[in-house]
Amino acid sequence: MLIAFETLKAEFKRILLSLNFSESKADECAQIFAENSRDGVHTHGLNRFPTFVQYIKNGDVIPDAEPIKEGGFGSMEQWNGNLGPGMLNARFCMNKAIELAKENGIGCVAIKNTNHWMRGGTYGWQAAEADMIGLCFTNTIANMPPWGGIDARLGNNPLIIAVPRKDGHVVLDMAISQYSIGKLNLYKSKGEQLPLPGGYDAAGNLSTAPSAILDSGRVLPVGFWKGSGLSMVLDLLATVLSQGRSTAAITNGGPESGVSQVFIAIKPTGEQTENLVEEIIAYAKSSRPEKRDGNIYYPGENTLRTREKSLKEGVWVDENVWEKVKGL
Amino acid sequence: MLIAFETLKAEFKRILLSLNFSESKADECAQIFAENSRDGVHTHGLNRFPTFVQYIKNGDVIPDAEPIKEGGFGSMEQWNGNLGPGMLNARFCMNKAIELAKENGIGCVAIKNTNHWMRGGTYGWQAAEADMIGLCFTNTIANMPPWGGIDARLGNNPLIIAVPRKDGHVVLDMAISQYSIGKLNLYKSKGEQLPLPGGYDAAGNLSTAPSAILDSGRVLPVGFWKGSGLSMVLDLLATVLSQGRSTAAITNGGPESGVSQVFIAIKPTGEQTENLVEEIIAYAKSSRPEKRDGNIYYPGENTLRTREKSLKEGVWVDENVWEKVKGL
Repeated sequence: MLIAFETLKAEFKRILLSLNFSESKADECAQIFAENSRDGVHTHGLNRFPTFVQYIKNGDVIPDAEPIKEGGFGSMEQWNGNLGPGMLNARFCMNKAIELAKENGIGCVAIKNTNHWMRGGTYGWQAAEADMIGLCFTNTIANMPPWGGIDARLGNNPLIIAVPRKDGHVVLDMAISQYSIGKLNLYKSKGEQLPLPGGYDAAGNLSTAPSAILDSGRVLPVGFWKGSGLSMVLDLLATVLSQGRSTAAITNGGPESGVSQVFIAIKPTGEQTENLVEEIIAYAKSSRPEKRDGNIYYPGENTLRTREKSLKEGVWVDENVWEKVKGL
Repeated sequence: MLIAFETLKAEFKRILLSLNFSESKADECAQIFAENSRDGVHTHGLNRFPTFVQYIKNGDVIPDAEPIKEGGFGSMEQWNGNLGPGMLNARFCMNKAIELAKENGIGCVAIKNTNHWMRGGTYGWQAAEADMIGLCFTNTIANMPPWGGIDARLGNNPLIIAVPRKDGHVVLDMAISQYSIGKLNLYKSKGEQLPLPGGYDAAGNLSTAPSAILDSGRVLPVGFWKGSGLSMVLDLLATVLSQGRSTAAITNGGPESGVSQVFIAIKPTGEQTENLVEEIIAYAKSSRPEKRDGNIYYPGENTLRTREKSLKEGVWVDENVWEKVKGL
């Protein structure tokens, strides 16, 4: 069903206020959850909200915790998230990185002891709205085997890169696994095969069967050995720069909490920026499409379309989850 | 055959001196080419040297060109490579980024009008040797279709991320295509299939046949649509930050010259760095291997083994190429 953005946000806010969130923190969190649904990222919007509430009730997310600065040097700052809501900490850090970049061209903020930031793209859009190039990544609980192994020892460590653009920012928001566990479950529940291989079955064969991959736990990193290496270095960067918990420590600690993240903002300077961005997008789009009526999209293009549609026609919500959330 | 590192380097240097390289520039370029072969990256060591010489003779690489600073702000600098040797410009830029990071925690140097840097990992190792986290990437000529398209409109835009480590730096050096054209040709010449899908055949099916992929030109980006987006944003960053040529402009300009690159160095601070790095590597290695005698490696681990072997036993060279180079 479709509901108005403001209705969705108001419901989130009502619940968060009942959980000892301050007015402003409830508003900001509610806004982010509603925006994620509005942009079509349901897994990190409405559908994730009940889990977020559970984390708060369990004490893994602390509503009134504030980040504090613990170290760093020059335009590289280290913060402690004190297990506050991941979205608020992440917005705070990207904002800090933007301020540093305004002062000095580039800024980097690493944060430890923070929590799941929901949709990583949120902070890419944030940087781009401030006319900054934004780059951020997070580590996660182990959910993907390293290349050559069968036990999950790497996170899917989402990586976000955003470039500001007048007619719609370019925002790449990619986890390092080919498909998320949520996406695999979605295909499984529909009884469908994946369009492309997403992991290995128990016998070690590349597979498009979501249940075979979920059973083996052998989720595929993007680009096979390459994504395995990329996931590991992103964990190294997030952990070393923040001096926080690695995927190893997060996984050994139980529920996914106290993760490490990095936010970098860079100020684009130069008169040709707009033309260069358009040149690159137009060139990609000049490729002949694979399918007769096919299209080539830049990262973030479809998000923007979904956003416009949601604001016009209403935000799509899963009726069951919506009812559940209204009862919280 | 195996030859001594110094023999290989001396031969490169002799030829470069005959091409109007200064003593110091000939030495530095020869060192980098020899190191690439030493580390097992033959495609960007000896095997690439004749092409490099041809570029110099054609005037696409200008031996005595010096980079000049054209812009930037704070710890973000913009340089013009003036079509000098890509390796020298790249080493210069990573060095600048390291200096900026020493002063201010993080430094970013973007360069336009530079040339192929050969092995990108060279500059990752350089940063790590200086005890810095290093991150760099380059754009290239179009050699990979965007997702949903069939004509090459994206570069394979190698991305390097390095983390310093006492017992061997972690250096990820990955092109955004699943296999390089050189690797596809290698499999083809041996009459072998790729171990994993590397592209599409002319009918649009995922393929492990190198000749079918080379014929269609439909090289696979890492992670399908994800690598397509990642390649595009890396081109955007390199081009916008340097105000240089995009993959579009490079491709339309003829031979691959005048590319755009970005170098970022970040100073790791904190007492736990060494322990955290070891924790992450040990955790990945604790996964049960897929094959009974299998191993899990961190990025750069095999490079280091090859290096040690080459220095002990001699650097492997293709006899035909070696003879050809000796005749230059």
